[in-house]
Amino acid sequence: MKACVLFSGGKDSSLSAILLEEFFDVELVTCTFGLLPIGNTASNIAHALDFPHRCLLLDSEIIENACNMMIRDGFANNAINFIHREALETLALQKKEFDIFLIADGVRRDDRVPHMEKNEIQSFEDRHNVCYVSPLMGFGRKAINEMIRTHLVIEEDESRTLQKCDYEEELKEALVRKIGLKQADQLFPKSHKQSRVTARI
Amino acid sequence: MKACVLFSGGKDSSLSAILLEEFFDVELVTCTFGLLPIGNTASNIAHALDFPHRCLLLDSEIIENACNMMIRDGFANNAINFIHREALETLALQKKEFDIFLIADGVRRDDRVPHMEKNEIQSFEDRHNVCYVSPLMGFGRKAINEMIRTHLVIEEDESRTLQKCDYEEELKEALVRKIGLKQADQLFPKSHKQSRVTARI
Repeated sequence: MKACVLFSGGKDSSLSAILLEEFFDVELVTCTFGLLPIGNTASNIAHALDFPHRCLLLDSEIIENACNMMIRDGFANNAINFIHREALETLALQKKEFDIFLIADGVRRDDRVPHMEKNEIQSFEDRHNVCYVSPLMGFGRKAINEMIRTHLVIEEDESRTLQKCDYEEELKEALVRKIGLKQADQLFPKSHKQSRVTARI
Repeated sequence: MKACVLFSGGKDSSLSAILLEEFFDVELVTCTFGLLPIGNTASNIAHALDFPHRCLLLDSEIIENACNMMIRDGFANNAINFIHREALETLALQKKEFDIFLIADGVRRDDRVPHMEKNEIQSFEDRHNVCYVSPLMGFGRKAINEMIRTHLVIEEDESRTLQKCDYEEELKEALVRKIGLKQADQLFPKSHKQSRVTARI
């Protein structure tokens, strides 16, 4: 059965895909608004992990709304949650075309966003007749770190910016275009150590 | 790294073990109060699944307290939750002796009991310096059924009673001994279709 994993090129979505591959035909799907070449970057990482990969272009109205949310809120949580829900909805509309049985993401037990409440999950699964799964939801940070250590090669680099392929990256770009670099920067916490998945062990 | 999976011989704990085996050295651990031969039954199933297995004898005070809870409440939820916590605590005390890195259970997203709140998980992990993991927490019923279908052989039998190896089975036995079969029966919902894991696919 086909499982589409929302893929940001990061450790969590990579690990989620590895957890599922024993049970499902995994396809990695990277959502993009086309503002940055994150599709290409994600595609390269997916190739290194030996998973099939495709990009899913999301409606520009979504990023526009997310920008407005962020400007209103002064922080990213609601905007990220909003984009995640819209990404899930957009992917679920492809259920028939791509014969999708299951949609997964890389959300972990300790993540505050994105987060789906139980009733939202129920509604999503019922409306689309599709399974929604977060393979890492039952795992804490220390267990996940150990699983990453034994299964993924991670490149860490503080000296240069590694392109990430998550919602935040394009949300930041959209905000820069909308309100300028200085103001956009103030809405995001300073980014911590950069890391990127480069291969499997 | 060693991962001990609380093993009831059922589908969920079996599937949890299979999910973890790619990442950890899995050992199945069946908790028992010694009231019923569930240790032997669980051991046979574990053997069929090709996992190492051992039994963990829990203190009789735990089942005594659980019985009193059930008589007080009139239903099993709190008692089951209580036994589950005590089982986790007892197993965590063996961390050094058995070199345990991670303790897992078969709890799913849709399970009402047993259930650990986030602050309880945090406290448990911090106090014992051990990882607590519920590999199925991010999975719904339909996804789990599909994973079971492709990985486990299940024997279903409505005509006879298949010995289960979960807390409920010994809790029922303890209650029968304490207040008699008729009264004990009233405290448990009528059991549904019996099933047992017999092999891997």
